[in-house]
Amino acid sequence: MTVALITLTTDFGADSSYVAAMKGAIWSVAPDARVADFCHSIPAQDVPAAALFLRDVVPFYPPNTVHVIVVDPGVGTDRAALLIQWNQQILLAPDNGCWTSILDGQPAMVRRLTQSQYWRLPVSATFHGRDIFAPVAGHLWRGVKPDELGEPIHNWKVLKLAKSKTCDGRIVGEIVAVDHFGNLISNISSESLAAIGPGPYDAILGAVRIGPLRRTYGDQTPHTLVALISSNGYVELAEVNGSAANRLGIGVGEELEIASALVSPGRDGTTT
Amino acid sequence: MTVALITLTTDFGADSSYVAAMKGAIWSVAPDARVADFCHSIPAQDVPAAALFLRDVVPFYPPNTVHVIVVDPGVGTDRAALLIQWNQQILLAPDNGCWTSILDGQPAMVRRLTQSQYWRLPVSATFHGRDIFAPVAGHLWRGVKPDELGEPIHNWKVLKLAKSKTCDGRIVGEIVAVDHFGNLISNISSESLAAIGPGPYDAILGAVRIGPLRRTYGDQTPHTLVALISSNGYVELAEVNGSAANRLGIGVGEELEIASALVSPGRDGTTT
Amino acid sequence: MTVALITLTTDFGADSSYVAAMKGAIWSVAPDARVADFCHSIPAQDVPAAALFLRDVVPFYPPNTVHVIVVDPGVGTDRAALLIQWNQQILLAPDNGCWTSILDGQPAMVRRLTQSQYWRLPVSATFHGRDIFAPVAGHLWRGVKPDELGEPIHNWKVLKLAKSKTCDGRIVGEIVAVDHFGNLISNISSESLAAIGPGPYDAILGAVRIGPLRRTYGDQTPHTLVALISSNGYVELAEVNGSAANRLGIGVGEELEIASALVSPGRDGTTT
Repeated sequence: MTVALITLTTDFGADSSYVAAMKGAIWSVAPDARVADFCHSIPAQDVPAAALFLRDVVPFYPPNTVHVIVVDPGVGTDRAALLIQWNQQILLAPDNGCWTSILDGQPAMVRRLTQSQYWRLPVSATFHGRDIFAPVAGHLWRGVKPDELGEPIHNWKVLKLAKSKTCDGRIVGEIVAVDHFGNLISNISSESLAAIGPGPYDAILGAVRIGPLRRTYGDQTPHTLVALISSNGYVELAEVNGSAANRLGIGVGEELEIASALVSPGRDGTTT
Repeated sequence: MTVALITLTTDFGADSSYVAAMKGAIWSVAPDARVADFCHSIPAQDVPAAALFLRDVVPFYPPNTVHVIVVDPGVGTDRAALLIQWNQQILLAPDNGCWTSILDGQPAMVRRLTQSQYWRLPVSATFHGRDIFAPVAGHLWRGVKPDELGEPIHNWKVLKLAKSKTCDGRIVGEIVAVDHFGNLISNISSESLAAIGPGPYDAILGAVRIGPLRRTYGDQTPHTLVALISSNGYVELAEVNGSAANRLGIGVGEELEIASALVSPGRDGTTT
Repeated sequence: MTVALITLTTDFGADSSYVAAMKGAIWSVAPDARVADFCHSIPAQDVPAAALFLRDVVPFYPPNTVHVIVVDPGVGTDRAALLIQWNQQILLAPDNGCWTSILDGQPAMVRRLTQSQYWRLPVSATFHGRDIFAPVAGHLWRGVKPDELGEPIHNWKVLKLAKSKTCDGRIVGEIVAVDHFGNLISNISSESLAAIGPGPYDAILGAVRIGPLRRTYGDQTPHTLVALISSNGYVELAEVNGSAANRLGIGVGEELEIASALVSPGRDGTTT
């Protein structure tokens, strides 16, 4: 494998000296490596947020991409450092489950990084991003093979993200992310909708009926609340040209229901 | 044309998964494409802010640069997706006028993107940045010609930015941007000053005379308010080593006058 | 020297049009230059903050890196623009001492940039980042030699960062930085500890004994305050999976003491 690109996902904060030091550790091994920032504002130590980010991004990347993920509350403890081969891409991440969100049924080969000759020595107790993951990415760029970096393992932490459930002809899920626009993204996938009939579907938030699933924002007038299928394939609540999060005052964890519009009660809380 | 660089300007928010997905869509087409972030914090749906940003940045770029602009409140509606050839550069943007700020009298060839074989299919209704603009940029990198991507059009939305006016020997304009330092940037260009005489010139904000145009910040003592010609060629109000926006409590939209210092009244509100 | 990489450190703000314009000025000279963002959120005009950032990052970079630093309250005045050759790297920075934090006893060759044929003309009075430093970086990329850009000088501003002191068997320093996690980083280096004996060591903040130096965050239970050696080699106070800055309500400038645990009084303010 010839690595085409190395991406970085951390909770270090945009513009952190830790990010710059990590890149220096990559380039000290592989001065010509192509490095792209994915995200450095995963909330501190928030492994589930990292998992959702990776789920929405990694599948869009071509083969031969190496993703370095450092959201690592267990740094310096005996938690393993992993190399994951998945779908012709490679992920380097601590063993805290952050990467397991991408699996979606496809097999992964997982190795524990143990070959310290590919690390920056001495390894600090608090910054394995710089001292282990970054130099390993650099060595992959230079042609070192995954099987030179550690042995396969067969047990690792799996992060179980909350799933939506179908009951009584409704799908019950929850808001799992709020994007920069204030759009509320749920864990109810477009594929799951068929289980409650052919549609149309209504989105119901608490006692408020948001209304039928729309196609896109601009189909409705500005400042209308709409439900639609987000670009990542999940039901999303949005305010056209506004922030649904601010409008509704809600965030991650809020329960969302989808019902068949044909059987849902006439409650209509749409406020425009 | 061999593309040298692809830049990205969006309102997705720094570190957004949408930005990472867009880059993945470019690299899935053109794994070796050089991609640079311009700005991802254009205020949400703020087409005029995008227009000002592009006006201040695009002219500094060399030929063979492709600029992808996704500030797109009309995504998924029938608004066109455009390819603009200007000054040996290319812009890819929705037809909302955001790019027309750069024209400044130079001709542009405008095409409507219609050739879906160069898109990521199926195209979502809410994310043409990822599904149309990014893959088209990738195909341009790979050598596809603009005339393979769509036919020329002759009508497009033009965004009219507020212009300064000369009347009664004064130039009246307004603050159109506030930078990260709290400097207040107006729409009164240095070229427009000659219309009211050879100078020196006074900047007057409401009832307060800021004083004559200075050459640079460090010519005055810290925490002095100064007016000067900004690096983008427009009159700017600044507080030396401070924030004029915070000091004056004003922002975009505030009226600013420039008068000949020889005829302007003796009001002097400079506070140091 | 063949330049491998150009990095940018500024106080312009992430996503600023000034950053994009600077990159355009580099690429207009050297379209294939590799440019990496280090940090654009150094606090405005905060030369000591830039100095700390560079101290923690530059040593991790390989030879043939060019670092452009534009934190420049004196832009447009007669302060010199410098080119510094240090440890096979090059820094381009205004003469305000920001770069002197990296020296650490290693010699530097310092030149004053004077050869305006390598600048973007006319040079503005307020943006030498775009008009001097960026094009000079581009010309270095293209193979122009440092001695073509200006003559050596022997006097420059030196920034003296506050140093810790050893007295009465204690080391007294201060908090000099707060990172994105709310970790409090001091100026007490791990090397300085030996002066007060072999350890173990206690960290004492005002009247509160934080306790002995730990190895890493995860060795303690969540929401415990810990003192440890940061990845940059200085004593750090942290809250496990939390923010010490928020917990303690303190920031840069706060005094920190390190004492031998064998002789330190029994005050124990650890709160868990």
